[in-house]
Amino acid sequence: MTDKARLYLYDTTLRDGAQTSGIDFSVEEKIIVAHLLEDLGFSYIEGGYPGANPTDDAFFSERRVTKARFAAFGMTKRPGVSLSNDPGVAALLAAPVDAVTFVAKSWDYHVDVALKTTLEDNLDCIRQSVEAAVKAGREAIVDCEHFFDGYKANPAYALDCARTAFEAGARWVVLCDTNGGSMPHEVTDIVTAVVKLVPGDHLGIHAHDDTGQAVANSLAAIRAGVRQVQGTLNGIGERCGNANLTTILPTLVLKDEFAQRYDTGVTVEQLKTLTQLSRAFDEIINRAPNRHAPYVGLSAFATKAGIHASAILKDPRTYEHVSPDSVGNRRRLLVSDQAGRSNLFAELDRLGITYSKTDRRLTGLLSELKEREARGYSYEAADASFELLALRHLGDVPHFYDVISYRTMVESRVNAIGDRVVVTEAVVKVKVDQEILMSVAEGNGPVNALDQALRKDIGKYQAEIAALELVDYKVRILNGGTGAVTRVLIESLDRATGRRWSTVGVSANIVEASFEALNDSITYKLLKNGNAGA
Amino acid sequence: MTDKARLYLYDTTLRDGAQTSGIDFSVEEKIIVAHLLEDLGFSYIEGGYPGANPTDDAFFSERRVTKARFAAFGMTKRPGVSLSNDPGVAALLAAPVDAVTFVAKSWDYHVDVALKTTLEDNLDCIRQSVEAAVKAGREAIVDCEHFFDGYKANPAYALDCARTAFEAGARWVVLCDTNGGSMPHEVTDIVTAVVKLVPGDHLGIHAHDDTGQAVANSLAAIRAGVRQVQGTLNGIGERCGNANLTTILPTLVLKDEFAQRYDTGVTVEQLKTLTQLSRAFDEIINRAPNRHAPYVGLSAFATKAGIHASAILKDPRTYEHVSPDSVGNRRRLLVSDQAGRSNLFAELDRLGITYSKTDRRLTGLLSELKEREARGYSYEAADASFELLALRHLGDVPHFYDVISYRTMVESRVNAIGDRVVVTEAVVKVKVDQEILMSVAEGNGPVNALDQALRKDIGKYQAEIAALELVDYKVRILNGGTGAVTRVLIESLDRATGRRWSTVGVSANIVEASFEALNDSITYKLLKNGNAGA
Repeated sequence: MTDKARLYLYDTTLRDGAQTSGIDFSVEEKIIVAHLLEDLGFSYIEGGYPGANPTDDAFFSERRVTKARFAAFGMTKRPGVSLSNDPGVAALLAAPVDAVTFVAKSWDYHVDVALKTTLEDNLDCIRQSVEAAVKAGREAIVDCEHFFDGYKANPAYALDCARTAFEAGARWVVLCDTNGGSMPHEVTDIVTAVVKLVPGDHLGIHAHDDTGQAVANSLAAIRAGVRQVQGTLNGIGERCGNANLTTILPTLVLKDEFAQRYDTGVTVEQLKTLTQLSRAFDEIINRAPNRHAPYVGLSAFATKAGIHASAILKDPRTYEHVSPDSVGNRRRLLVSDQAGRSNLFAELDRLGITYSKTDRRLTGLLSELKEREARGYSYEAADASFELLALRHLGDVPHFYDVISYRTMVESRVNAIGDRVVVTEAVVKVKVDQEILMSVAEGNGPVNALDQALRKDIGKYQAEIAALELVDYKVRILNGGTGAVTRVLIESLDRATGRRWSTVGVSANIVEASFEALNDSITYKLLKNGNAGA
Repeated sequence: MTDKARLYLYDTTLRDGAQTSGIDFSVEEKIIVAHLLEDLGFSYIEGGYPGANPTDDAFFSERRVTKARFAAFGMTKRPGVSLSNDPGVAALLAAPVDAVTFVAKSWDYHVDVALKTTLEDNLDCIRQSVEAAVKAGREAIVDCEHFFDGYKANPAYALDCARTAFEAGARWVVLCDTNGGSMPHEVTDIVTAVVKLVPGDHLGIHAHDDTGQAVANSLAAIRAGVRQVQGTLNGIGERCGNANLTTILPTLVLKDEFAQRYDTGVTVEQLKTLTQLSRAFDEIINRAPNRHAPYVGLSAFATKAGIHASAILKDPRTYEHVSPDSVGNRRRLLVSDQAGRSNLFAELDRLGITYSKTDRRLTGLLSELKEREARGYSYEAADASFELLALRHLGDVPHFYDVISYRTMVESRVNAIGDRVVVTEAVVKVKVDQEILMSVAEGNGPVNALDQALRKDIGKYQAEIAALELVDYKVRILNGGTGAVTRVLIESLDRATGRRWSTVGVSANIVEASFEALNDSITYKLLKNGNAGA
């Protein structure tokens, strides 16, 4: 352990990540995210800009993290004012933080056009700002904005900025690819040049994903000698996002060439919480998780091809570059039309359904699966419907209620005072224990009305579905045109337990398909509650 | 131009991309996507596996592309059978294609465990397969599966596989990072070793994104000498996806170090269609476009920070690594709607709508467009609805008919003899020239019934819509959950002329959204027929 070099993960989700269009953190959300980040084991957590807005002022009113180093971000001293008269620097130095991160110009063009000062004065602003932070007992960090573009335009000046920051006492000088247009080999070359002037264990990298290479650029910089890497959870950030720490972290911990050389401060146990943390963060920012995200995506370890699936069952290393368990994710062998028995067994195992491999009922299940998939069913994203289907063949699914009939209607007309009104209504008649129950409800669409009516009264089971909620509804038209078939996927949530499950329905009629998925959802919930049925 | 080396873009969206969970291309969709790809200027289009399933058989029943090279994919000859007795190879050689791409094992472990044959026999399978393709007049391509992992385990054998394919006459030997776990510097090192045995202008790279570095790995391989790069549109593919050609292409065309050395066959004019093509493809696979995608994402050139925005207005290069116009995207600044106006002008020009740039009605049109887009409308894939909206502001759209009311109903019940019956019915009441017309129709779903009833009788216009047909219907739920809004896209076809057009509707109620799109479709048809209206 002691012969490894320390590598510092610096999270800027709450600062640069907050530049993402559509993302606006509240103080409470910032506090929750900061705790997620420190629990994961990141080294630095940058919380925002003190003095810039009420949210950040409230967030920096207290020391928000204890396990990680807490950092505040702001600009270096402005040209033309003295340090003591710069309100931005004053707000930064007043924040109860461990580290102060100054963004500094390092591209001569920007010093001239945006900052409107001399190159020498900009160096002086950097020097004074760093010295002030150190004097105030803070760790000083300098983010050299546009460092790579600046280096390409004027290498001597970009290097002057980095060296000035380091010589003034900055703990870290961070090389930023602000526009995100740099290539990994350029990062390698430029970092190699900088390391000759500023030691690597005082250098950091801050990359953006505008050419889809923020991760590669960050790793190239580490290989060239930097010891701090900045990024965000799930790669959020302005334009195409910042370097994705959710992707970089597992590579650093799991891939030998990095794992043998560096200690990130994140343990293998902490790494196992990564998938859950990534999804929890998406919930906070109200974004659907990226199914295809490296390491943590729902599909990151999913295999559709039958030939791959049978090889994975023999030896996972054949088609997996790391173990899904290592990041808290799981293997998924998709039950698709290319699948065979091996996929089926793996899925049954994953769902904890006991069976014997010689059970003849498995043949019936497999053939029904294939027949249904040919009709348009897809169980890849409908675990609950898959489990019900399997149990109907292999075990026993109680018969909780019968739907005698239903009707749903949408009517649009002009009322007596000339306004157009739309009425959407559904009626459902169910039988539970010989008792006939009829319910009617309105909704904002035919399926919503049907959902409301169906869940209004199922007799003795009603209390058990009180906390059930339809949280996502997806429609896909297969084939297209007049011969089209509609596939509906429904995600349900039990508000009482937080448990989620997905069901599927297929029909030429969207209402029928939806009703099938709704019924599967309710049946699944009642089954999981351990009911014996009517 | 002539001093540049030719670099070949090989698209596998329709083959490896079809391994994506949740994606199932129909034959019609494959045909549409193949045309998009050849229009973009890609060199090779791989369409699927002939002989593997009915969809691919139908797709390979004809030569589907003429501007690009058309490729079919399959396995090398199986061990233990003679070439003439291998149905997979026979199906490949029978396909009307330019190129046959064989996937071959190149990791000794897989030859042993998955293929269950000797290392020498695997080389023989490669040799015989390539020779058969060449003899059949096809270009032979060999995808060396697991090449990088194989090279790490047994470099001599991996190299043997590549050399055998090349010496047997393969036009291309493609090095595949099948599990997606390789790092760019490993790709650089290994490609450098292979280039010593197989010339770079016969080598390709096929990368996967499991560490978020498929783009970087592809570019590293090109820098190390390969001349073919495989990938998919929008990076679709199994697990975390394939190398994203939508990201790689602009880097190759726009970044000097690649642009000065290589000719991709894609012109700067074709590159300007990339953003539109990327979004059209997402519509086809019914997936919400990634707002943060490099180059083509809605936010790829969006700036939130005020300081950045004002700098961009002074000089876009300060915060943009390439021009958004170069990929057909646009800059988004919160401070200005300049981008909106220029985009609107471009759209009006494209549709051949005449206008004056000083016409004040353009302001009203732009603000209605923005307001509708905020509500969920999307005109990128609904030209006909866009044209109607524009003409309602700038010109004149006749009022052909009024819908007085409509009603649609789905009823499911058990009939007198105990069978479950579903009845779906709609009634529409329209007014044409003071005449009230009422129609009723059944359908296989509420929207289909409504469509049938609406088109049953619109009086004097009826003959003109006789050949109109609804050929595609797509539904997307925006937001999700209870606050969801439904967007419906309808594609219509006039069987008499072959002309197709697309319309959009948005509402909390799927029936209302569909009805809006249906009405736009009929109105558009009547307008294009030159009717003056009621």
